[in-house]
Amino acid sequence: MLKLYTYFRSSASYRVRIALNLKGLAYEAVPVHLLRDGGQQHAAAFTALNPTALVPVLIDGAATLSQSLAIIEYLEETHPEPAVLPKDAAGRARVRALAQTIACEVHPLDNLRVLRYLELQLGVDADARKVWYRHWVELGFAAIERMLVEDARTGRFCHGDTPTLADCCLVPQLFNAERFGVPLEPYPTIRRIGEACGGLDPFRRAAPQAQPDAE
Amino acid sequence: MLKLYTYFRSSASYRVRIALNLKGLAYEAVPVHLLRDGGQQHAAAFTALNPTALVPVLIDGAATLSQSLAIIEYLEETHPEPAVLPKDAAGRARVRALAQTIACEVHPLDNLRVLRYLELQLGVDADARKVWYRHWVELGFAAIERMLVEDARTGRFCHGDTPTLADCCLVPQLFNAERFGVPLEPYPTIRRIGEACGGLDPFRRAAPQAQPDAE
Repeated sequence: MLKLYTYFRSSASYRVRIALNLKGLAYEAVPVHLLRDGGQQHAAAFTALNPTALVPVLIDGAATLSQSLAIIEYLEETHPEPAVLPKDAAGRARVRALAQTIACEVHPLDNLRVLRYLELQLGVDADARKVWYRHWVELGFAAIERMLVEDARTGRFCHGDTPTLADCCLVPQLFNAERFGVPLEPYPTIRRIGEACGGLDPFRRAAPQAQPDAE
Repeated sequence: MLKLYTYFRSSASYRVRIALNLKGLAYEAVPVHLLRDGGQQHAAAFTALNPTALVPVLIDGAATLSQSLAIIEYLEETHPEPAVLPKDAAGRARVRALAQTIACEVHPLDNLRVLRYLELQLGVDADARKVWYRHWVELGFAAIERMLVEDARTGRFCHGDTPTLADCCLVPQLFNAERFGVPLEPYPTIRRIGEACGGLDPFRRAAPQAQPDAE
């Protein structure tokens, strides 16, 4: 059986949990607590699996896989149906670009370890960290809202009427934005898609509060 | 002909230039100066192409593509040979994970706009910005060095003996690290691969100093 090293509140783990559920793949969840024991992701047993000391990690037989988007692409190649990428190259590029706008432009800046660096190394206070957090979410969401509104390929979900890799990334980022109190009024399309996803069982079962290690 | 909106020193543009050259694809370079005119990427004509206001953007006929890794995946699908991803799913996942370790964990934190935020919004001085810059490169490179050393699939390049998407990402990050004076002694495998890539014409022609808009 597939084994997923995960943390309930990790946005990147959440993406992979959604994709696994969308594809109907059962997996064993192995919780890695990012705050306990100085961060269990730094334990030698874990960095032997993933030297970047980041969740998620997926084990599939002999294969040990890291980086959420690489893992989802792997799942797409090994379990093509239901697909989380469209069939046409331009559509696939669009879905990947939406996903990467979150994974490369928003999330890395609002990661736990970055917020801790701001606090501990640079002495940035809680208010200024909140402004930082919102700044990158708002910059990313404003761009994504426009990418969604201005493109006829947007449907019930980010791309067409079935969930894709883009939705796997959007929903966890939306969860984080709400958690940090980012005002979401300026992003009606993002909110609409978030609600459509929230109505689906694969997304609900992947949510942080539904995880065995939820607090 | 393909049209690439690019900036000579943009790491993400550099990745795409390498991939285009590896695949032998001719393209028209359209320079976007990230510092001039308050940042030409913010002009309405450019954000109409890419609402994230980031280079690179690739135009292929009717398709307008953004996000460097999404663009390279598109090139791989539309021009499969020579391949920049291996054939097996586990190998493809490994190459993508190496690429994403740079594109999601290192580069976003050391981006021009992040360094400017640290300076202008948070008043972080030049020395502390340099420490920040190095911190994320060193964290990422230490993990990548280990991922390369501990895996028998590492060859003359990051994965086997032909360049892949991972090398397309590693070389621009190495260029930036050298530019910012990050000590590279701890990463002999990364340096060896960087030198192997540097000997190849597609990498040389993609380098910042070889661009028409180089300063």
